Amino acid sequence: MKTIYLDNNATTAVRPEVLEKMLPFFCERYGNPSSIHSFGGGVAAEIEEARRHCAEMLGVKFRDRDGLASEIIFTSCGTESDNTAINAALKARPGRNKIVTSIVEHPAILHYCEELERRGVEIVKVPVDGRGRLDMDFLKKSVDERTALVTLMWANNETGTIFPIAEAVRIAHAAGALCHSDAVQAAGKELIDADGIDIDFLSVSGHKLHAPKGVGILFARRTIPLTPFIWGGHQERMRRGGTENVASIIGLGEACRLATIEREAVQKKLAALRDRLERGITEQIPCIRINGDIENRLCNTSSVSFEYIEGESILMLLDMNNICASSGSACTTGSLEPSHVLRAMDIPYTAAHGTIRFSLSAANTEEEIDFTIKCLVPAIERLRQISPYWKGEK
Amino acid sequence: MKTIYLDNNATTAVRPEVLEKMLPFFCERYGNPSSIHSFGGGVAAEIEEARRHCAEMLGVKFRDRDGLASEIIFTSCGTESDNTAINAALKARPGRNKIVTSIVEHPAILHYCEELERRGVEIVKVPVDGRGRLDMDFLKKSVDERTALVTLMWANNETGTIFPIAEAVRIAHAAGALCHSDAVQAAGKELIDADGIDIDFLSVSGHKLHAPKGVGILFARRTIPLTPFIWGGHQERMRRGGTENVASIIGLGEACRLATIEREAVQKKLAALRDRLERGITEQIPCIRINGDIENRLCNTSSVSFEYIEGESILMLLDMNNICASSGSACTTGSLEPSHVLRAMDIPYTAAHGTIRFSLSAANTEEEIDFTIKCLVPAIERLRQISPYWKGEK
Repeated sequence: MKTIYLDNNATTAVRPEVLEKMLPFFCERYGNPSSIHSFGGGVAAEIEEARRHCAEMLGVKFRDRDGLASEIIFTSCGTESDNTAINAALKARPGRNKIVTSIVEHPAILHYCEELERRGVEIVKVPVDGRGRLDMDFLKKSVDERTALVTLMWANNETGTIFPIAEAVRIAHAAGALCHSDAVQAAGKELIDADGIDIDFLSVSGHKLHAPKGVGILFARRTIPLTPFIWGGHQERMRRGGTENVASIIGLGEACRLATIEREAVQKKLAALRDRLERGITEQIPCIRINGDIENRLCNTSSVSFEYIEGESILMLLDMNNICASSGSACTTGSLEPSHVLRAMDIPYTAAHGTIRFSLSAANTEEEIDFTIKCLVPAIERLRQISPYWKGEK
Repeated sequence: MKTIYLDNNATTAVRPEVLEKMLPFFCERYGNPSSIHSFGGGVAAEIEEARRHCAEMLGVKFRDRDGLASEIIFTSCGTESDNTAINAALKARPGRNKIVTSIVEHPAILHYCEELERRGVEIVKVPVDGRGRLDMDFLKKSVDERTALVTLMWANNETGTIFPIAEAVRIAHAAGALCHSDAVQAAGKELIDADGIDIDFLSVSGHKLHAPKGVGILFARRTIPLTPFIWGGHQERMRRGGTENVASIIGLGEACRLATIEREAVQKKLAALRDRLERGITEQIPCIRINGDIENRLCNTSSVSFEYIEGESILMLLDMNNICASSGSACTTGSLEPSHVLRAMDIPYTAAHGTIRFSLSAANTEEEIDFTIKCLVPAIERLRQISPYWKGEK
């Protein structure tokens, strides 16, 4: 039985075209791009091509005098990019000791901020409303002359809600602070125009956009001195030590190139699939809520609360039909509590516990969506029958 | 014309067996190991198998109550492992603010130590003698009750010289300090018995032992609290955030498994090839020096100084014959100065400048070695004829 994979915000399949581009760099063209000999050094040019594709996807137009997209730095993952940006911002704004972020960020931001808090940095977390929308008044009041960095995710991994990042950049810059966005969920799905909104840092993860795991991008504007986070050799212009992850970088470049070309068509397709899924659920299952900012969210993400039942049980019944979805962020599993995102939105306990995140990719089909709805209807009914909280709607 | 790759200390080819193990994890079994659904969760078991193979290669026997090799943490590279170990050691020994290292370490140690020095940490660099051997008296005198960590490479990347790590651990522990070794060049070539010598931290890089670039190991003894370096999700037991680099981890596990099985045979083969190379050079080319601790060095590494000529010119002539070697560490290229390792050994300027590092792998053959010698003889002669420093030996 074929797997129906509706968990693309957790990770995505590497596209066959991407893997094909990567393959020569494992056993054949395996040289170290820092080598003097042409066998290794020749690889460096391919890395620069990948860098250009990444820059294009992010709307980064600056080229240095050699024509290289020097504002793009390759890292090992979105988490490393996030940590690096925050660390660099504190160094680039000496005398400022405050970071303004949101209550619904990814653990890569929140856990690092908590660590910085233990080291004496002031952390302010902007709250969100019931639809996951940022409290802009709170943000404006929080950003001041002590603020080094405003860091806000471009789109939420659980609900898909998109934050007004262009506005956040303006607020940050007006106070002399820098602005970073964790664009891990948005990159490749949403139009990102780093130059247009004049943002200082952006984080991207390869494996969320059909490149392999273990590679990420940090965009860092050239005007900001970038203190390395990982210190080692002279790679990435002394900004990130460690031998370049050549094959994965090549794969990431190809994934970005494809994402740039296909984004508008994919966006349309994904929104139609997501709407089909939500329509089916809304029409056939009572007592459900669709979470997040309905008018302003990622095209591929649907967070649905099935009231009075447990998300884990729903996932298990879906799993028995080879349907993959999740109950929250894959980065915070292991806890039985509703996710910090749903709690921040004040979703009632009975709904938050039964929340499932469906996250689609362009590989999904209408048939898969219809099959998922067909499986969900009896599964939800069965679970509600055995739920002590369910009073019925029949 | 086939490439003769004698630059395996810079990076190695991924072994076909390793790539084969990795391939299913790109486009087919691409799930996130943190996912609840079986499609993703099933991958977690394979990661644990890889972890076991890594533990075995390093002589790490501890298994937690679930039988998992929990002292092995996957990172993105040797550099990250090095940074993480140093950072964690400082945290694990509060009140101690001194790190003892050597003058010939890799930039992943030296550059991070220099950064820590700027942050107020005392750094002591133990010198080496003309053969690259550590000054053990200096080491003993440097390690005291203020020392948090002794960090020394297992084997030098340029000369292959092996440091007495077991003795370093004893010296560190006697003073209540921790001990870390950057074993990037030794792992897979030398017998490493982490438990036997009771070392606290070890760093390994995948791409130096025929696994892919972009993945590394940090061994961290369970008795030492390990402060994360990259903060994010709950991955690696909350010790390293970021989605697991599944395919590369699986590849690394396989490479470690093969290295463990084949080590003794490979060691013998490599030493014979290296000796053949050095014999040929010594017999046919005048005014050369073989650097490093001849009796106690890596089986695959030969650092040869061709006096009175430039290393870069030798490399270019070799490159024209598709022979890849290097003039120092690939992580420090771009500089025209002799490497910090050769300078630390007080190699005369006229010799240091003409130093070539040949680093072999089991894929090399006697024919390749003989061809290399055949190319070297006229190349060196030609370069010396045009060298202003060459007075002749004819």
